[in-house]
Amino acid sequence: MQQVADRAGVSIATVSFVVNGTKYVTPATTARVKAAMRDLKFRNNVVARALASRRTRIIALLFPTTGNRFSPTTSEFFMAAAERASERGYHLVLWPVDPAGDDLDDLVSGGLVDGVVLMEVRMDDPRVAKLSELDVPFTLIGRTRDSSGLPYVDIDFETTIEDSLDHLEELGHRQFGLVLEDLAGTPMDGYAPHLRVEATFERSIADRGLTGTVVYSESGSEGGREAARELLEAAPDVTAVLIMKDDSSAGLLVGLYAAGRRIPEDVSVLSIASSGAAGDQHYPRLSTMVAPGRELGTRAADALIEQLDGTSADLPHFLLPCVLRPAESTAAAPRSA
Amino acid sequence: MQQVADRAGVSIATVSFVVNGTKYVTPATTARVKAAMRDLKFRNNVVARALASRRTRIIALLFPTTGNRFSPTTSEFFMAAAERASERGYHLVLWPVDPAGDDLDDLVSGGLVDGVVLMEVRMDDPRVAKLSELDVPFTLIGRTRDSSGLPYVDIDFETTIEDSLDHLEELGHRQFGLVLEDLAGTPMDGYAPHLRVEATFERSIADRGLTGTVVYSESGSEGGREAARELLEAAPDVTAVLIMKDDSSAGLLVGLYAAGRRIPEDVSVLSIASSGAAGDQHYPRLSTMVAPGRELGTRAADALIEQLDGTSADLPHFLLPCVLRPAESTAAAPRSA
Repeated sequence: MQQVADRAGVSIATVSFVVNGTKYVTPATTARVKAAMRDLKFRNNVVARALASRRTRIIALLFPTTGNRFSPTTSEFFMAAAERASERGYHLVLWPVDPAGDDLDDLVSGGLVDGVVLMEVRMDDPRVAKLSELDVPFTLIGRTRDSSGLPYVDIDFETTIEDSLDHLEELGHRQFGLVLEDLAGTPMDGYAPHLRVEATFERSIADRGLTGTVVYSESGSEGGREAARELLEAAPDVTAVLIMKDDSSAGLLVGLYAAGRRIPEDVSVLSIASSGAAGDQHYPRLSTMVAPGRELGTRAADALIEQLDGTSADLPHFLLPCVLRPAESTAAAPRSA
Repeated sequence: MQQVADRAGVSIATVSFVVNGTKYVTPATTARVKAAMRDLKFRNNVVARALASRRTRIIALLFPTTGNRFSPTTSEFFMAAAERASERGYHLVLWPVDPAGDDLDDLVSGGLVDGVVLMEVRMDDPRVAKLSELDVPFTLIGRTRDSSGLPYVDIDFETTIEDSLDHLEELGHRQFGLVLEDLAGTPMDGYAPHLRVEATFERSIADRGLTGTVVYSESGSEGGREAARELLEAAPDVTAVLIMKDDSSAGLLVGLYAAGRRIPEDVSVLSIASSGAAGDQHYPRLSTMVAPGRELGTRAADALIEQLDGTSADLPHFLLPCVLRPAESTAAAPRSA
């Protein structure tokens, strides 16, 4: 450190301020210190600092390695959380982890990250138990079955589904379909958003005295086409379909067209927990319950950083519903319905 | 370390093998050592190891923080590189960085990563100069203007465009359009794939004695619709359009329909450097020059790890063209053309 100070022509204290970010140093001086560190190959300062302070100021957003689950909405969560972390002096990285959580131990015990944000949470997620056991600060984007003692931010799927049904019921629809991705037997089996959406749909449809049919689709466009066939076979009179799977929406539309249904004249389609940009990819543009990805990503970063900095002792429990963006795929139910 | 050894009932050497991964230890013993470390809150072993060996076995895939550029193809690069790194005993994380490269210094001088893979490379990318200056092992997914002295893997855009024109010329097309995203004035200005694609298109169209029009589109569906309007205004007789922007393809189709063009009867559309799954999202399904995302991601991880492990002294220069997947959006040129 003395060598760096000498070369940069500053005090050791100043070098320490730059290295540890503990006090304001002018950009010019900072640049001089950094140049000296570079010249002297003074590497590993963050590592050294981490060893001293047990802090790296790196937080990891854990994302499952399985399947191709990185959707535009995921990207929104990630970019918003990364921006927020950066504003608050942390660096957020996306860290692929095994869905069973077998590699969490290495990551967390390694001391390389100060805390983690967990995404794509299942109802009984083994990774949540592991994180609790490892005693590392964490926040969930999502909720397990019982999250009362855990810090989380999540989409309010219950309100989202009620609002979706309100919108379509007001348009005169009585016969509903719901398309969800079939995750049975995959590592993502028990994916909490699906279970909450399905349970709310079933209950609310019954409470409202409506008719509802749930179909599980394979992923991708082909899965959407097959879902349309299955749905129309099980419920030929369906006039309103909710779908929560971006990459199957196009196939669903094509499958409905292929069966002679016009959209929205014969069947209304509402995309759940997606984005306006994704809805605009379709013809007709999909009416969408827009996921608050940016706000939840920001809140998740805030919640974790407040734990790390000790600035808040509250356990964050933050739910935000999707917001309806009406477009061209929902309209009044056909008169015959 | 002695405490951990005592608690796990093993020698200090065994603890060291587990911590440093330098020798095979049975799963049962490994579990015992890890449990003891956990019980004793023996954290920071990776950090300590890094300080000792100057290695963390973490590599970072650098991705620009600007815009919403995380496409399904990007996701393929990332997931493939992460899987490959994991197979070879490294952990790959996605690290958002400023496109100007101003935060690279902190990341790399910090010693937290052993090496980096840089994506979304521009022709004169300031980040490449910074990485060279910082003396950190790196590999590019992409190429700068002169990459002869740099390790890279990239899509062979030149061959991709020639193959695209071959396919469409064989179908009788003579009037071509090319739609690229307008990045002028954004931090991604000078994005190398665009410049290579455009230069190859212009040159090859001239060599072949064909007619070609280039249109720059805003991003998203609306940008695609506007691109269709502009293209048809500039070249009303166009019968074949190449588009290299996933999120504007849907808008392009809608814009062509709106102007009374049927696809593929009147106009063929070919999506460049995208994926089959993305092509299947459209109606009709888009014929696609499929980006070799998985193979390039794997190769990029290999190239970096071989530098790090010193197992290869070769400078990797690996180019792979996109492969044509014909679908429903390309067909013989209309007779009148």
